[in-house]
Amino acid sequence: MNMTEWVDTHVPDWLSQQRGSKKVAIEYEGEFWTYGQLYERAGRLAGYLASLGAQAGERIALLARHGLVFANTVHSIIQLEAILVPLNTRLSATELVWQLRDAGVHMLIYDSDHRELAQQVVESLRTSVAAGPIEVELDGVHWNEDELPIYHEYIVLTATQSLMYTSGTTGRPKAARISYKNQLWGALGSALRLGVQPDDRWLTPLPLFHVGGQSVLLRSVIYGTTAVVHAAFDPVKVNQALCEQGVTLVSVVPVMLSRMLGEQTEPYPNTLRNVLLGGGPAPRLLLDVCIQQHVPVSQSYGLTEANSQVATLSIEDSLRKIGSAGRALAFTEVCIMGEDGPVDPYQEGEIVLRGPTVITGYENNPEADERAFRNGFFYTGDIGYVDSEGYLYVLDRRADMIVSGGENVYPAEVEATLLAHEDIMDAGVFGMPDERFGQLPFAVVKVRLGVTLDIAELKKFCRKHIAGYKIPRKIVCAAELPRNASGKLLRRELLKWL
Amino acid sequence: MNMTEWVDTHVPDWLSQQRGSKKVAIEYEGEFWTYGQLYERAGRLAGYLASLGAQAGERIALLARHGLVFANTVHSIIQLEAILVPLNTRLSATELVWQLRDAGVHMLIYDSDHRELAQQVVESLRTSVAAGPIEVELDGVHWNEDELPIYHEYIVLTATQSLMYTSGTTGRPKAARISYKNQLWGALGSALRLGVQPDDRWLTPLPLFHVGGQSVLLRSVIYGTTAVVHAAFDPVKVNQALCEQGVTLVSVVPVMLSRMLGEQTEPYPNTLRNVLLGGGPAPRLLLDVCIQQHVPVSQSYGLTEANSQVATLSIEDSLRKIGSAGRALAFTEVCIMGEDGPVDPYQEGEIVLRGPTVITGYENNPEADERAFRNGFFYTGDIGYVDSEGYLYVLDRRADMIVSGGENVYPAEVEATLLAHEDIMDAGVFGMPDERFGQLPFAVVKVRLGVTLDIAELKKFCRKHIAGYKIPRKIVCAAELPRNASGKLLRRELLKWL
Repeated sequence: MNMTEWVDTHVPDWLSQQRGSKKVAIEYEGEFWTYGQLYERAGRLAGYLASLGAQAGERIALLARHGLVFANTVHSIIQLEAILVPLNTRLSATELVWQLRDAGVHMLIYDSDHRELAQQVVESLRTSVAAGPIEVELDGVHWNEDELPIYHEYIVLTATQSLMYTSGTTGRPKAARISYKNQLWGALGSALRLGVQPDDRWLTPLPLFHVGGQSVLLRSVIYGTTAVVHAAFDPVKVNQALCEQGVTLVSVVPVMLSRMLGEQTEPYPNTLRNVLLGGGPAPRLLLDVCIQQHVPVSQSYGLTEANSQVATLSIEDSLRKIGSAGRALAFTEVCIMGEDGPVDPYQEGEIVLRGPTVITGYENNPEADERAFRNGFFYTGDIGYVDSEGYLYVLDRRADMIVSGGENVYPAEVEATLLAHEDIMDAGVFGMPDERFGQLPFAVVKVRLGVTLDIAELKKFCRKHIAGYKIPRKIVCAAELPRNASGKLLRRELLKWL
Repeated sequence: MNMTEWVDTHVPDWLSQQRGSKKVAIEYEGEFWTYGQLYERAGRLAGYLASLGAQAGERIALLARHGLVFANTVHSIIQLEAILVPLNTRLSATELVWQLRDAGVHMLIYDSDHRELAQQVVESLRTSVAAGPIEVELDGVHWNEDELPIYHEYIVLTATQSLMYTSGTTGRPKAARISYKNQLWGALGSALRLGVQPDDRWLTPLPLFHVGGQSVLLRSVIYGTTAVVHAAFDPVKVNQALCEQGVTLVSVVPVMLSRMLGEQTEPYPNTLRNVLLGGGPAPRLLLDVCIQQHVPVSQSYGLTEANSQVATLSIEDSLRKIGSAGRALAFTEVCIMGEDGPVDPYQEGEIVLRGPTVITGYENNPEADERAFRNGFFYTGDIGYVDSEGYLYVLDRRADMIVSGGENVYPAEVEATLLAHEDIMDAGVFGMPDERFGQLPFAVVKVRLGVTLDIAELKKFCRKHIAGYKIPRKIVCAAELPRNASGKLLRRELLKWL
């Protein structure tokens, strides 16, 4: 490797660069760690894990919701030059066993809240794999002043930082191979779109084991700013953090934001400069309410395979381009692909991506790679279009699209319409097989407490906003809709329900 | 080239990405161009230059102070994929002829203010070179709606964006080969240190033909923010821009800042978030005044060969680390090199650099490359040290260091002491050859109007602050000190004066 190649693939370690800073690196449920503390503790935990047998290049799984355990582990694994496999704490033991085996995990770290689940998983693995992974329980947070710390000096950009299993809204989970390069460019592209300020405090009530949460941790260290982590989403607590604790940025999905606004009577203070709204197309009504109430919302389109953000609407465009997920971030290319190649503005097609935040592939899954990567572009499976100024409009997952009597029906659009009705708290739409029409749109809704739903009236309401063929043929009530840990609707589950 | 290599070396064109933005791209003496206008005009000027014979890869020199001519030309050359050679408008025809010949320039663009000088240069070149360069006068600003615009889609990061002749404080000018990679990483590293906000307005009263000015133009386009350019430095006009025109960042050198503070009676408004202070170590007194008056000053260390900023002190450290140029930017490594390799904190040595903002070499100058590039590091020729937290303290140019009786004397320190005296407006210190001591420090000072200098009293004042061997043996008065267009003191000129 010559010096130019070396410079192109190495950057000084992010955490080590911040070690002299007196700023808070991470805040979790009232506890604060400065950058100096995080640096020292990550180094000592790295030393501890090495003493237990962890080595560079190995896969280390993490089953935890505790924000400090999570941050400490993420950064100690970076210092060790090992690979993080963050686990979804909502999965069953069987699902976790499958992922640990798929990823070839050598060590499983868990917090005390997940001891039982972790031990079940390890036991099950021991019956099939010779030794099974090394177990490490971090009771609260581990840091031992006698531990010999381990630090590395450079981050190798081409190395894998984590194997991130996709949320699994479709098919069996695939492990997206997230590199340090993906992390760095994700941070840089996001900074140029959202701006970055030395006193930024970025709150994530999203789980850290998904890309939306983890990226907040990594970006904050790259920027030298503060990550604020909540143990679980609680709208009152989030509002408190925004109003009283100087949070400047917050990452949420539409259902979370709806609930936050439902609890909030005062306008948010000026310290809050961006509400990053991901996790699928946002209902128009929600965006309208945000604009009326001067909530600085940035609709965003992202996915695990692009290390979260792909496109994000700037605050200054939030009115002019309402409903759009904005332009692609500075270093990401978004292209709309039809049957015969790229299509013109306003024409619908599959959203395909290229750029330094896009993964090089799925781990150990050549079939998935072959489907997703073609001609150097990543095929997202999402449908959308761009306008004449290059602003992206995301319609839906291609796999969720309903074709009814030859017409395309996008569940997201129908759901947004249902949600615009004052009695509807949540809605899910999916395609029901039909002999005559191919598919028909069906809906499951959650109704406001104490209200009896008038289905005829609701259909009439829909008719005012969308074409007749889009109106759900059947509307069923449910107490709660199936959503994954990130708040994403699991449409496939709805079909199973009926 | 495989797809990974392609992605690593290509980014979507910066200006083209901003073309839909309604924001002001550049502001010059009361004129405003939006991003849409700059995009269109750069494309059309590229078309015009191509119609005159300009081609990709060729060198195009620019002799202009007009901010819009400058910005328009810089961006049209990027669209053409040609190489910009910005010329110092203060140079003599002979010096310019030398640079144009050295750079192998095919086209010379000038504004009407520099017509005479440009024509002298072209005439002189025609006597020696067969044809001489194509001349293009841009009278005010050229844009013709009938011109067929030329745009490119991607920026090739490895390509050369400009050949930037170093200010020439030592030896004959060397052409630093600034790549798009240098520009991009300079912008990103600076953004992470200073922060970046969508409504940023960055003022440069520094000339655009030097790296400090040009980098403001390029960074603003990469960020999608506004560059404000002044035709020449005028402290009253700069203060007006800071107080009344919402400027958020300003790039200055110490003499400029001194003059600004001298004219300013009110505190600067909160909209001003950073005064980036480059161009050599700042006098301590000036920094003290800034802190007293709550001027948000960031001392910075930079050089042409690293595309300006190398290290910059954050505002939050400005009191705690006063006198330091701060930590290296996120992607830049700073190392202090002694005779036998890297030295410990607090030990003085040569400042050496590595990282993606550092040029790969000087154009057409293998001897200079050999001197400056060793073991993959760039040797700056500047002397400094870092403290235990990695904060850089720049002492002086190695070439300017005075060795007197075996002791090192740094002119910058002595000058700062002289400037701390209320009657001294400017000061320059240099080494005068001496048989007994090797060298002795001599000084030239500019005295406050109407004051008669008491040299004995001034020496006594110095004695309170610095060691005896550092006190200038001789102090001479002058009406003005020799400084280059960036305001950098030309110490070598001082010696010639006496």
